[in-house]
Amino acid sequence: MSPGDSLRRLRDAKPLVHQITNYVVMNETAIATLALGALPVMAHARDEVEEMVELAGALVINIGTLSPHWVEAMLLAGRAATERGVPVVLDPVGAGATRYRTETAKRILDEVDVTVLRGNAGEVATLVGVDAEVRGVESIGAGGDPADLAQEAARALGVVASVTGPTDHVSDGERTVAIANGDPMLAAITGTGCMSSAITGCFLAVNRDRPLDGAAEALVAFGVAGEDAAREAKGPGSFHVALYDALAALDPATLDGRVRVP
Amino acid sequence: MSPGDSLRRLRDAKPLVHQITNYVVMNETAIATLALGALPVMAHARDEVEEMVELAGALVINIGTLSPHWVEAMLLAGRAATERGVPVVLDPVGAGATRYRTETAKRILDEVDVTVLRGNAGEVATLVGVDAEVRGVESIGAGGDPADLAQEAARALGVVASVTGPTDHVSDGERTVAIANGDPMLAAITGTGCMSSAITGCFLAVNRDRPLDGAAEALVAFGVAGEDAAREAKGPGSFHVALYDALAALDPATLDGRVRVP
Amino acid sequence: MSPGDSLRRLRDAKPLVHQITNYVVMNETAIATLALGALPVMAHARDEVEEMVELAGALVINIGTLSPHWVEAMLLAGRAATERGVPVVLDPVGAGATRYRTETAKRILDEVDVTVLRGNAGEVATLVGVDAEVRGVESIGAGGDPADLAQEAARALGVVASVTGPTDHVSDGERTVAIANGDPMLAAITGTGCMSSAITGCFLAVNRDRPLDGAAEALVAFGVAGEDAAREAKGPGSFHVALYDALAALDPATLDGRVRVP
Repeated sequence: MSPGDSLRRLRDAKPLVHQITNYVVMNETAIATLALGALPVMAHARDEVEEMVELAGALVINIGTLSPHWVEAMLLAGRAATERGVPVVLDPVGAGATRYRTETAKRILDEVDVTVLRGNAGEVATLVGVDAEVRGVESIGAGGDPADLAQEAARALGVVASVTGPTDHVSDGERTVAIANGDPMLAAITGTGCMSSAITGCFLAVNRDRPLDGAAEALVAFGVAGEDAAREAKGPGSFHVALYDALAALDPATLDGRVRVP
Repeated sequence: MSPGDSLRRLRDAKPLVHQITNYVVMNETAIATLALGALPVMAHARDEVEEMVELAGALVINIGTLSPHWVEAMLLAGRAATERGVPVVLDPVGAGATRYRTETAKRILDEVDVTVLRGNAGEVATLVGVDAEVRGVESIGAGGDPADLAQEAARALGVVASVTGPTDHVSDGERTVAIANGDPMLAAITGTGCMSSAITGCFLAVNRDRPLDGAAEALVAFGVAGEDAAREAKGPGSFHVALYDALAALDPATLDGRVRVP
Repeated sequence: MSPGDSLRRLRDAKPLVHQITNYVVMNETAIATLALGALPVMAHARDEVEEMVELAGALVINIGTLSPHWVEAMLLAGRAATERGVPVVLDPVGAGATRYRTETAKRILDEVDVTVLRGNAGEVATLVGVDAEVRGVESIGAGGDPADLAQEAARALGVVASVTGPTDHVSDGERTVAIANGDPMLAAITGTGCMSSAITGCFLAVNRDRPLDGAAEALVAFGVAGEDAAREAKGPGSFHVALYDALAALDPATLDGRVRVP
């Protein structure tokens, strides 16, 4: 794993990252993507998603504020990505909170070749049928060890499972990587989970053949930015601003040395 | 009225506040809700709003960028909230500017048991049939005394009326409370009206049986945060950031002492 | 051209600027409009756009996250604006990236009396049939001289063409103005193109008979704010915040002296 090397390649290649995401965070994930060094594009019309995905280095699907037309667009885009070998990140926001979210996330997992499933423990546990408590879009509790959960989800769903929390666990079913980068302030603002999914898309775009490494490197990069931002912050507002500054200031030359494992 | 006590209870209970709000402020009201200490969830699909409202401590309906599918979802969620006794805040953004907005706000008031109607003078005057000038989403002028308007709206519409402006007036038809907290900078950024409605929802979630107090306490808390933020700000951008920091930094122990009455 | 005089008149008149724009930037363009001194209103329901446009000093149409219902609303609002002589800005975000965007932009140009077309070189080149490379919503390259492109677009499409980039070129087909205000940081955050379109709408609202001047003055004002913000910024997050502060702090008395030509 070399997040520094991937970041360097990402900033050279400036991949287009197609995001079909929710209304709450659309601005945030676009700014975070651009701050990191990739090019975001938001497009959700059924009339254009397939064409847009062909231009993209990765597709990020986020069900945070879904409705039927958007679900159709997610499936169209996801199937087009599958056909063209474009890596797909699924963020199953709020799976477990309502049947509609759980079923939509499952349908996408069925019909699309999802590369990385990035969610909190409650969301991922819901999708593998483990008991979990999800309140709105927050994971309140999911029984068991999150490393085991990541491995189980990877095996059961045929994805790289990226289960984020105080410690993150990323697994392809065989190998499981734990990452301890980040700061508690990341939980104090809206959209950081969604941003981590967008950044996962950025790293996948330059790591098509190494999705486990790409997904883990994305969480290192985002976590390090969170650590840097927390030093500047007086509260959630100033943390939010400093987080974008920190993403843009991430230094490929020092990033590998900042990987933290539990 | 004890905004400090309510804030303490809110941060302990972390109620889920379900918001069906407009595209412009969705990120802002989510961040403000989280900064205050509650959990926001945005969900507008007809397939899930009833289920989501069952999990919520309050429902906030905001018609800022409405369209027919959203109106249906607002009515579905509102009726479900009415059935389950979940308090409902209605923010009639732009009522008076177009017939569609006026009629939608009236329809929601008819079909849903709205607990608190939170609007500017022009919007509220429109809904009680008093002459008012609303330009876009700004209240330019509403004849008469805003305290009387709040009382009249409360009686005519069977709600707690929360009429915000340089001085806020909150009335249940019997008792009317005036609050002078706040700062002129709050009018310099987009979304502060919508944020005050979201925060009203947060306070109602822990004051189900005292909606007048809850609505007034919310305006105190938001106004105090505005006062604190204004001290940090060089303009609307830095005020906006400082406002989130200030909401998170609100101190339950000192809040009651900061209530300002005209 | 006197951007200072126009800004003074804008802040006196506080025109309502009706924006049918994309989900990513809706909050940003609203805040920027308000920071500058005009009143933003976002409304996209077919049931109300015609009525809203009648209240407006300008209409801004931005196709950044379009879908069929929104396109219908854009056409309804645009035709109503045409009938009432309300100036219209079109921002053809991503024209050239997908057929749907290109065709929608062309359809709006056909059916609506667009006053100013504000886009990057790739988007504008696409609409006049010149070879261009557009990746997502970024212009990667458009052959030829951008001043010529602006002039050609103005003549071919019957608009004032406002082609922004490191140097901006605004043309009515006869006269072409070049503006060198701005800062490279403006390209580092999402939404600055869309903000420049919104601000163009603000300046058109007080310059109905001088659209070329209005469009050029808007880019001066926005560019000067970008220059001021860059002095405060540590990265894209803090630049974004400083940009809103700088828009609000723009001084009509000194603005004319800050016009930069290449």
